[in-house]
Amino acid sequence: MRTQGPVRTWSPAYLRPVLYLIGGMLAVLAVAMLLPAAVDAATGHPQWRAFALSAAVTLVCGGLLLYVAKSDLSDGLTLRQAFMLTPFAWVTIALFSALPLYLSDYAQLRGNVTNAFFEAISGLTTTGATVIVGLDQAPPGILLWRALLQWMGGIGIIAVAIAILPALGVGGMQLFRTESSDRSEKVLPRARAIVSTIGLIYVGFTIACAIAYVLAGMTPFEAVAHALTTVATGGFSTSDASLGHWQSPAIEWIAVVFMILGALPFVVYVGLVRGNRQALRNSQVWTLLAFCAVVIALLTGWLALTGRYGITDALRHAAFNVVSVVTTAGFASTDYTLWGNVAIGIFFGLLFVGGCTGSTTGGIKVFRFEVMARLLRSYFLQLIYPRGVFPRVYGGKPLSDEVVGSVVVFFSLYFICYGVLTIALMAFDLDFVTSASAAVATLSNIGPGLGPIIGPAGTFATMPDAAKWLLCFAMLLGRLELFAVLILFVPSFWRG
Amino acid sequence: MRTQGPVRTWSPAYLRPVLYLIGGMLAVLAVAMLLPAAVDAATGHPQWRAFALSAAVTLVCGGLLLYVAKSDLSDGLTLRQAFMLTPFAWVTIALFSALPLYLSDYAQLRGNVTNAFFEAISGLTTTGATVIVGLDQAPPGILLWRALLQWMGGIGIIAVAIAILPALGVGGMQLFRTESSDRSEKVLPRARAIVSTIGLIYVGFTIACAIAYVLAGMTPFEAVAHALTTVATGGFSTSDASLGHWQSPAIEWIAVVFMILGALPFVVYVGLVRGNRQALRNSQVWTLLAFCAVVIALLTGWLALTGRYGITDALRHAAFNVVSVVTTAGFASTDYTLWGNVAIGIFFGLLFVGGCTGSTTGGIKVFRFEVMARLLRSYFLQLIYPRGVFPRVYGGKPLSDEVVGSVVVFFSLYFICYGVLTIALMAFDLDFVTSASAAVATLSNIGPGLGPIIGPAGTFATMPDAAKWLLCFAMLLGRLELFAVLILFVPSFWRG
Repeated sequence: MRTQGPVRTWSPAYLRPVLYLIGGMLAVLAVAMLLPAAVDAATGHPQWRAFALSAAVTLVCGGLLLYVAKSDLSDGLTLRQAFMLTPFAWVTIALFSALPLYLSDYAQLRGNVTNAFFEAISGLTTTGATVIVGLDQAPPGILLWRALLQWMGGIGIIAVAIAILPALGVGGMQLFRTESSDRSEKVLPRARAIVSTIGLIYVGFTIACAIAYVLAGMTPFEAVAHALTTVATGGFSTSDASLGHWQSPAIEWIAVVFMILGALPFVVYVGLVRGNRQALRNSQVWTLLAFCAVVIALLTGWLALTGRYGITDALRHAAFNVVSVVTTAGFASTDYTLWGNVAIGIFFGLLFVGGCTGSTTGGIKVFRFEVMARLLRSYFLQLIYPRGVFPRVYGGKPLSDEVVGSVVVFFSLYFICYGVLTIALMAFDLDFVTSASAAVATLSNIGPGLGPIIGPAGTFATMPDAAKWLLCFAMLLGRLELFAVLILFVPSFWRG
Repeated sequence: MRTQGPVRTWSPAYLRPVLYLIGGMLAVLAVAMLLPAAVDAATGHPQWRAFALSAAVTLVCGGLLLYVAKSDLSDGLTLRQAFMLTPFAWVTIALFSALPLYLSDYAQLRGNVTNAFFEAISGLTTTGATVIVGLDQAPPGILLWRALLQWMGGIGIIAVAIAILPALGVGGMQLFRTESSDRSEKVLPRARAIVSTIGLIYVGFTIACAIAYVLAGMTPFEAVAHALTTVATGGFSTSDASLGHWQSPAIEWIAVVFMILGALPFVVYVGLVRGNRQALRNSQVWTLLAFCAVVIALLTGWLALTGRYGITDALRHAAFNVVSVVTTAGFASTDYTLWGNVAIGIFFGLLFVGGCTGSTTGGIKVFRFEVMARLLRSYFLQLIYPRGVFPRVYGGKPLSDEVVGSVVVFFSLYFICYGVLTIALMAFDLDFVTSASAAVATLSNIGPGLGPIIGPAGTFATMPDAAKWLLCFAMLLGRLELFAVLILFVPSFWRG
């Protein structure tokens, strides 16, 4: 990635590589639309036309961009181009992804720009918040499309987290700069290699998950749809009752395993595939697993001791729901908000956590808590010994002031965004619990919030349209780690 | 203040200056207890005995400490002694202040350690959360004592913020190091001079406020009691209905003026008294006033446009309640939570703000928002121009990385404490609104929270005892700006 100084003028030529890349993504999206079209056609649902028409429109637009903005990417992108690419790509793809939903004959989506876009971006950001009900009777095409959006969004964010965010140096992501994402080099060619290995692993997990679901009793279609959204830690389901519909411990445990697989850093798997066992020495992995284990143990004990469940069911419900929230999947097996204030308190805290960097998860993410803990430790020691020197180490390497500063700014900004979103939602006369949980559930890309409206048993359908657009923004903000979106609102960014 | 290296061993001699100072404070406290004793005796309430007995006990303990731990303070305190002094002094004084409440014949206080301590520390931290009802029928001694606690706590925190916290270098307070609080010097002798000037100003404001209240229709006793808690931005009242009891616009506007006076930095007044008009060039002052003006204007418009009040009443209610929350006083003129979710959202956000440093207010405080804004600005510019240099300036001077780092750590820690407190309160089976608002209302030293239990119309009486102790801790934590309390939990602090 070239780090040339800011260009003096905005020329069309400057935007070309960005538009070219988006054109390529749209072409892929158009091909993906043919899958639900084929499924609907095969099962005799007339809705296949919505997908076919959308595929055609998307292909034409993508092709046009590819043709008009044809660029030689061997030069890589400038910093500013990369900053533009990420949010613009997500929004553009969401717009085209919403097209078949808008054209569908689904009651809450047909002709409703807000709902169609909300559902599309909730999919692409792997959030899993939904505005539609009646999933159990929905034609298969639309269910497959929602699942595919999450699946594509999942691999998309892994690619961005590995290839682009470290180079942008936002939110402490510079910690994960590698030879494939250094600012001083061209990034895309090398990133392609690692991302394609990750793509294969991602496909492998998805196939394994689907097979496991079939063996546990799902139909092949249900299994594929859920495998796509489990590995992507997205949370869309084919049933209004989410995975609770099957009332199957086996299915829930399978989901637990694959949600965790989706929440670990995919570079670890690349290392393991390449025979490098050192890859397992990644502190995020063990911190996340240990954290989940402790919370699950506490919650299991509480559920069993208060007599809500027997020990086996308590363990299963605790494991499933904790993992579902921490990995930001947002599947539901039961309405945990009915467990009372103690459980709601725990889950509200979990809504902020998130999984590992370079995974499909959202949230603040484990490594930022790790860096924060090291910062606070050294900060307190410094207060006690003003003349001491307290080096901070992470993953065996010294933590630079730049990274620490970036992480702590991210923390503060995350809470500021959360607070502003909560207050903004209350301005739409939504109650406090709904507003506060909707803000974090979208910002952390989880999906369901708390309370009767948007809790595990509800949907976002009844929210005012303007609130839905605000939540779309929150999903994008969280997905792209705040800075990659907020920087577009800094006037200097546009002055060149 | 000497910054010698850590002492190797904990000797009784090391604690002596701390105990000596606390002894002196207890002696003052004992004298203060004679005031409510005198008032109760003069009005024929047998409760004067509780105050007289407590005064005797406190005087004996204070005298013993003064005698046993007699120290020469001309050497100042070491950093570690200063860190110990602040929280220990607050807790010890709160314990003795609770004694007359514990011995009183007041139903919710008599023989109830939890409630008596809660009420005392709520007073001394100028929080104003209360566990008692029936204030309108209470004997005058107890009402005066609650008011005096807030008044002493108010001047106490100004002294700490000027003389001690800057030297400790916590939460960005090093920004306010002056010749009287530099780490490399002895602090107490010089601090005494400025603090005694501030004391005179504080007394002057209190007298002026009391006279104004009398002119507006309060009885002299009510006027004094409220003047003490208004200037201290504490919020205790002599009526269960708080200032709403009088239904007097004049009284509410007087409160607005004196709450704001209490929320501005007292060093500004010292400067003005000494004829230095430059003292007004303090950005905190104007930021706070501008912020309040904008919020009041918006809320007034909303209240008037939605037909809740005519424009005059809308302005008064908006001004009073916004100022009461932002200055962390916590007086109520009406139950603003009945204005609906929009208002609740605004007030929830205001609970975090706080006033100026070196005032009687709590909360995050204006200067930290100002520093944060400068940090975010330079951070985003740095992302756009990686090779640029973006100096941060505050109050005409460059902002050091140390101060910026300290402020942003404070921000993060504030939200972390808030989150942990909220979840911990929910573990007592308290609902989300009560828990979340109690956490911030105590951490920001405001007092009333939101919701039916602890809202402007409620009390903390019905909370479980353990939750009350947690809230006592939160009040102290917020009052002493987090670090001065949390550092006591760092093992290295005690290892020496």
